[in-house]
Amino acid sequence: MARAKNILFIMFDQLRWDYLSCYGHPHLKTPHLDRLAARGVRFTRCYVQSPVCGASRMSTYTGRYVHSHGASYNNFPLRVGEQTLGDHLRKIGVECWLVGKTHMKADAEGMARLGLASDSVIGARVAECGFDAWVREDGLHGEGPAGLYDTKRSPYNEYLKSQGYGGHNPWHDHANSGVAGGEVASGWLMKNAPLAAHIHEEDSETPWLTDRAMEFMAAKAGGAPWLCHLSYIKPHWPYIVPAPYHDMFGPEHVSPVVRDARERQDPHPIYRAFMENLIGRSFSRDEVRDAVIPAYMGLIKQCDDQMGRLFRWMEETGAMEDTLIVATSDHGDYLGDHWLGEKDLFHEPSVKVPLIVYDPAPEADATRGTVCDELVEQIDLAATFVDHHGAPVPDHVLEGRSLLPFLRGEQPEWREFAISEYDYSTAPMADELGVAPRDARLFMVADKRWKFMHAEGGFRPMLFDMDADPQEFRDLGGDPEYADIVAMMRARLAKWARRMSQRTALSDAAVLAIRGKTMESGILIGVHDGEEIPAKFHAAYHGPVRPLPERE
Amino acid sequence: MARAKNILFIMFDQLRWDYLSCYGHPHLKTPHLDRLAARGVRFTRCYVQSPVCGASRMSTYTGRYVHSHGASYNNFPLRVGEQTLGDHLRKIGVECWLVGKTHMKADAEGMARLGLASDSVIGARVAECGFDAWVREDGLHGEGPAGLYDTKRSPYNEYLKSQGYGGHNPWHDHANSGVAGGEVASGWLMKNAPLAAHIHEEDSETPWLTDRAMEFMAAKAGGAPWLCHLSYIKPHWPYIVPAPYHDMFGPEHVSPVVRDARERQDPHPIYRAFMENLIGRSFSRDEVRDAVIPAYMGLIKQCDDQMGRLFRWMEETGAMEDTLIVATSDHGDYLGDHWLGEKDLFHEPSVKVPLIVYDPAPEADATRGTVCDELVEQIDLAATFVDHHGAPVPDHVLEGRSLLPFLRGEQPEWREFAISEYDYSTAPMADELGVAPRDARLFMVADKRWKFMHAEGGFRPMLFDMDADPQEFRDLGGDPEYADIVAMMRARLAKWARRMSQRTALSDAAVLAIRGKTMESGILIGVHDGEEIPAKFHAAYHGPVRPLPERE
Repeated sequence: MARAKNILFIMFDQLRWDYLSCYGHPHLKTPHLDRLAARGVRFTRCYVQSPVCGASRMSTYTGRYVHSHGASYNNFPLRVGEQTLGDHLRKIGVECWLVGKTHMKADAEGMARLGLASDSVIGARVAECGFDAWVREDGLHGEGPAGLYDTKRSPYNEYLKSQGYGGHNPWHDHANSGVAGGEVASGWLMKNAPLAAHIHEEDSETPWLTDRAMEFMAAKAGGAPWLCHLSYIKPHWPYIVPAPYHDMFGPEHVSPVVRDARERQDPHPIYRAFMENLIGRSFSRDEVRDAVIPAYMGLIKQCDDQMGRLFRWMEETGAMEDTLIVATSDHGDYLGDHWLGEKDLFHEPSVKVPLIVYDPAPEADATRGTVCDELVEQIDLAATFVDHHGAPVPDHVLEGRSLLPFLRGEQPEWREFAISEYDYSTAPMADELGVAPRDARLFMVADKRWKFMHAEGGFRPMLFDMDADPQEFRDLGGDPEYADIVAMMRARLAKWARRMSQRTALSDAAVLAIRGKTMESGILIGVHDGEEIPAKFHAAYHGPVRPLPERE
Repeated sequence: MARAKNILFIMFDQLRWDYLSCYGHPHLKTPHLDRLAARGVRFTRCYVQSPVCGASRMSTYTGRYVHSHGASYNNFPLRVGEQTLGDHLRKIGVECWLVGKTHMKADAEGMARLGLASDSVIGARVAECGFDAWVREDGLHGEGPAGLYDTKRSPYNEYLKSQGYGGHNPWHDHANSGVAGGEVASGWLMKNAPLAAHIHEEDSETPWLTDRAMEFMAAKAGGAPWLCHLSYIKPHWPYIVPAPYHDMFGPEHVSPVVRDARERQDPHPIYRAFMENLIGRSFSRDEVRDAVIPAYMGLIKQCDDQMGRLFRWMEETGAMEDTLIVATSDHGDYLGDHWLGEKDLFHEPSVKVPLIVYDPAPEADATRGTVCDELVEQIDLAATFVDHHGAPVPDHVLEGRSLLPFLRGEQPEWREFAISEYDYSTAPMADELGVAPRDARLFMVADKRWKFMHAEGGFRPMLFDMDADPQEFRDLGGDPEYADIVAMMRARLAKWARRMSQRTALSDAAVLAIRGKTMESGILIGVHDGEEIPAKFHAAYHGPVRPLPERE
């Protein structure tokens, strides 16, 4: 059988790595994603390149580190000219479509500078991070005194209105709120998380996007090969889910919190600032965790049920046998572990994500149901997709590496450490810490044993021994006994930082093709009397004497 | 008086820093550039960001390090999207024109990807490194078995032909060759350097470009403010100059060679490879130096005479009082020092350039004729030009800093070290050294005392103590006694490499403007019961209860 024609690249948002039963969750059963894992390879050390939506996704969609593309936080524009998955795939005849969320912010100033109109095909792709948008819906329709957080049109709100849901923002009032005392009980307030979202389950965000994906696949059947980025909005906050998922889980299913009093004793100043912010304080309260985590589990259960629906449909239509499927997330969720909520820092619940890759090709038969413990970076996916289509990976642009060898049971030489980054320059904590906007940056360097965090701005590092302390309670960054490990990790970070990441307009092969060729074009440097010219060029440079051209 | 309306940015090519009399050359008198220095500020530590034409210029024209823009060698395309001097200046109402050389290679693939046609205004500017080309002429019309080195049209060859110079490439046959025995004696052969170029002096490249600059200034008089990049081709090779400059200097005027037997004892492997290449071997021969250096001096003398002509004309037309003038070079020339020729490595003759800045404004009166010894990088010029026009320097894009404070007698806090880089991936030496194309990279870190060179690929560093050893003969890079200095320089390089260089689509001010603002747009993260919402938002989030929108 030839390789699968299409790629279904499924991303969940804020799905913590250990909240699937195939990754060991004791109470949350996710049989459909488990089954995908049983038919594919499950990666246990997949790190996102930034534990926050926008930056993580820009890395995944460009196949490049945050330090390389510069869109280092939510709504930081991806500069015009940066190449995306869509650029690489279309070049090899593969369409690249979006169904769902990207968190892409267009570089409007850069587009204007280059005269790119967002209603042109090229401009639209630049504005949509290289995707052709079947549906673009970020599901972030917060609204406050300054207006809407996301001012783009919302296909999902349009859909809800078409179905008769009232109000000007049914995303909020129905899909992400409950009802209490006959009033809207906003899902923004975590106390409302146990309520049922005020919406028919089949109209909520996750089934709605599943419908759009099936609609896409049905419409594209028999056409050109495609990658479809099915990018779910959930289980990302607001933490609220419709019936029957809202009460499937209760506080009795909440995993014990992973935190330790030692973490609050003389913590790293940046870690302390995150622990002390509103999010950290809230998620350190049992009542918050007991309200939120069952809803979060319900959202994931709904996602898994939708996977079941989708995969069944794909099996019925035969698509399952002709589609490479990837399922992952853009980052995790602390959920109160380490006295933190949300994401942002580099503990495993935040920076590690689930990653399952299923390839229907017989070459992958030997690895079905296996687990890969190598250090994977999510930027590896872009290279994987190009490699899947048999094209050479443009490694002067893409900084990740194809994962296909792991599906074929090969043992490639692999990276020794993974990198993640975080930019907290928009956080008020940067003020409190006295850090300039360009110094509010963190780098993680992790190998299989050590996890190191470097902070710009003159702070000491953080360091965890993942073997001795897998729960990451004991920060060794200031312990002189580990100075050699700190030095090793710093040297790795330095080498990585010096990497050649911007020579993107010329491949290594092109460099080799012009190596030592200037003399062939008559650039004779260091030649005194011509005897130095290699014999093969003698005819050209020592040929018959040319007549002297005179000024006429 | 208001600030000067226009900027004349003069660049010579391969003009070594100490080959002007104001920089101390004992035999080569350059009164016109000296006079500019007497009326302006002369910088004694100006380093180019790469000691090779293309990469150095791309840094200077973008105001960014090579590691940031990626066009790290001659004819490596500057990727589309990278912002240039022209982008920054036009945004503030200043035209940006080119008269002469840039060594810009357009990113044709990137332009095609974004649909930018090179015959559109935007496309032409992208292809010309942001300049509007009054004249683009790189003066590199080498021709060999593989054809022309530069396949673009040559306005200079067209000019020569219009003046009756014969042959299809009069740039070579007339401007850059002499005559011997009635035959073309090619300037590519250094033995011919003492001959007079076979051209009327006023038709040679340097006067021709001076004419074009005056033509430009005359045409633009009274119009919008402009920057004119008057970018000479000389004293770059081929080393040959027309009469009367060809015999103004002889071997008796050649400065003693700066080299030492210690340099050949166990040298750094990369340094050794450069010493042993054809260029190094040639320039280590006295007959080569005695032939080339007098011609090189003649070329510089001609440049200075043309400066005299240009400045006189500017004085007569009043332009001298309304024009900021910068004179510099894109790199130096070893000329046999350190057993090397040309440029490429980081000894002072290669990486340091002359820099003179003249500002007619009264604010600069106090510093006229003074010398500035601070560590200047040539990327500082782009910031200087923007600052000169009173606009804020976009420091999220431009990595250099304005030099204007030095012209006003201020003592700003300044950088502690300068950076330069070199990519030798197209050199056959990379093969000999067994270095992969992406590891064939060198970094210089220089402060006022120490000069450090790091090479990727597992080599030891180089280190010079410029106080104890100003001639850079004693490489301390492998000496354990200097391990602490090496560590300090490595840490500086690491910090520099981690810098935020790609967040170019968002200014620091824009980051600060959105800091902590998500709650204003209704993104309420970490809020449990609403009590956590600051009082100022209570009206918005705790206002009258909204009626419950029902599904109709």
